[in-house]
Amino acid sequence: MSKIVVALGGNALGDTAAEQQQRIDAAAPVLAEIAKQKELVICHGNGPQVGMVQLAFENASKTSDKVPPMELPECTAMSQGYIGYHLQKGLGNALKTQGIDKSVSTVVTQVAVDGNDPAFRDPTKPIGAFYTKEQADELKRLHPEWEFKEDSGRGWRRVVASPKPSDIVEKDTIKRLLANNFVVIACGGGGIPVVHDGYEGFRGVPAVIDKDHASAKLAQLIDAEELYILTAVDKVAVNFGKPDQKELDELTLKEAEQLCREGQFGKGSMLPKVEAAMSFIRAGGKTAVIASLDKAAEAVSGRSGTRFVQ
Amino acid sequence: MSKIVVALGGNALGDTAAEQQQRIDAAAPVLAEIAKQKELVICHGNGPQVGMVQLAFENASKTSDKVPPMELPECTAMSQGYIGYHLQKGLGNALKTQGIDKSVSTVVTQVAVDGNDPAFRDPTKPIGAFYTKEQADELKRLHPEWEFKEDSGRGWRRVVASPKPSDIVEKDTIKRLLANNFVVIACGGGGIPVVHDGYEGFRGVPAVIDKDHASAKLAQLIDAEELYILTAVDKVAVNFGKPDQKELDELTLKEAEQLCREGQFGKGSMLPKVEAAMSFIRAGGKTAVIASLDKAAEAVSGRSGTRFVQ
Repeated sequence: MSKIVVALGGNALGDTAAEQQQRIDAAAPVLAEIAKQKELVICHGNGPQVGMVQLAFENASKTSDKVPPMELPECTAMSQGYIGYHLQKGLGNALKTQGIDKSVSTVVTQVAVDGNDPAFRDPTKPIGAFYTKEQADELKRLHPEWEFKEDSGRGWRRVVASPKPSDIVEKDTIKRLLANNFVVIACGGGGIPVVHDGYEGFRGVPAVIDKDHASAKLAQLIDAEELYILTAVDKVAVNFGKPDQKELDELTLKEAEQLCREGQFGKGSMLPKVEAAMSFIRAGGKTAVIASLDKAAEAVSGRSGTRFVQ
Repeated sequence: MSKIVVALGGNALGDTAAEQQQRIDAAAPVLAEIAKQKELVICHGNGPQVGMVQLAFENASKTSDKVPPMELPECTAMSQGYIGYHLQKGLGNALKTQGIDKSVSTVVTQVAVDGNDPAFRDPTKPIGAFYTKEQADELKRLHPEWEFKEDSGRGWRRVVASPKPSDIVEKDTIKRLLANNFVVIACGGGGIPVVHDGYEGFRGVPAVIDKDHASAKLAQLIDAEELYILTAVDKVAVNFGKPDQKELDELTLKEAEQLCREGQFGKGSMLPKVEAAMSFIRAGGKTAVIASLDKAAEAVSGRSGTRFVQ
């Protein structure tokens, strides 16, 4: 069986537990269909979910001495358990219904980043609540290592680095489970970012790894043939949202590089997906496709999505 | 290699993330030592941790529309990710330091319970915040299926059932990982309780499974030879806390049954541990030991703890 990595957006999973389980149950039959034919790893985002966990602890720790503050790596770990549980249950039920003899297992995933990644010198990823300037200054006094930025007139927010993934700590776990007939959930939210501190071993760092980059890195490390990045639109488009918008069926690396340089893709949305797809192909991956979750089945059989080629 | 299941109490893991990582790092060398000789599964409690997650969501959801309320199965799943991450990191570092070629993997674990378990008719396990009678009545109006009980003069609390584990949904995952040279973290907090609803498959239920009973059930299902239940005291004692307190080195099933009938063991503390040890031996397990976390190494080599025999 060939290996496939499918990346799902955290936004597709809704904002409450009930919504999340519903949407997973709705997507599960298609994912089960893929699992029937291939060794399947599902990576997922966690933007809304980790935001919710973080905010819950931030708010509650101010009013109750029974709730400690919780740092970002731990919040990400919680979101992996939360989303992984729903995926195990929903997809597990779908596999059984379709008579597919596979089980689903979530791998709590640490993703190693380089402590010298330039991203740490310019943190850009906003997390948690909005503050007034005064509140942000007060927090900065309490936590000198925290950085704050003004967010488009809506207030001040803490920002963290978004470093590139350099290794997946649990890659062997993922490989072994695949080889043993499991569907694997991994790299939730881009993984829990850790750096290697020589003698001390790994330690968590407050950062956010882009889930599409983590998925591409994982796909490369486990020698997957295919990477599918599923999102809300059917295909990558140029002149997105303009009268002359044009959806693309195929992109060579050279074409994609040119479009990136032209600034065709949104920085926090399509650009990281395109870059992740390109990095997988550049590293020797066979197929990288950006497609919509709703048309995942068509995309896998080549009838929808944008395909990246050498 | 023979298989061993080690159950750790949630209380031993402290109340904050920093405390938890410290205590895990302190216990890690002993656990690594065990992993060197045996196929090791670590089960853990989550009382303080799931309480903290639950309270964070309960408090924050009242004041922010960005934080939805979160039910118990999802909170348990979050606590499994949170504790599993620290164990993977701390124990992973210790294994590397000791030159042991094993990796650590957390299995997000659903534990099946019987929807007709009599425990559901008499929920006794208090969870979450304390309320006034009026607050409890109001919540009961909003959630007619919730039960509340007065808690020793300290206020009203929601109570949930504590059903017996009937199956471990992810038992095959755990077996496969053990056979592939992994140290496995499983059944966190006694597992996420699910019931099987015929056509629909599994669904989560708001309940708490005793982690010692879940550990014993898992040890039985994966054909482990040994079950170690680690706690705060060195041995099981009769007349606990009295002048004639006596620590026990060994207990036959018959002796243990007699002491249970005499009410020698605290209901929420030592009794479930003794019952879990007995159930494992009764199901054909070779060795069940209750010992202290601090003397885990001595216990495993037979120099501390209370041993249960046929």
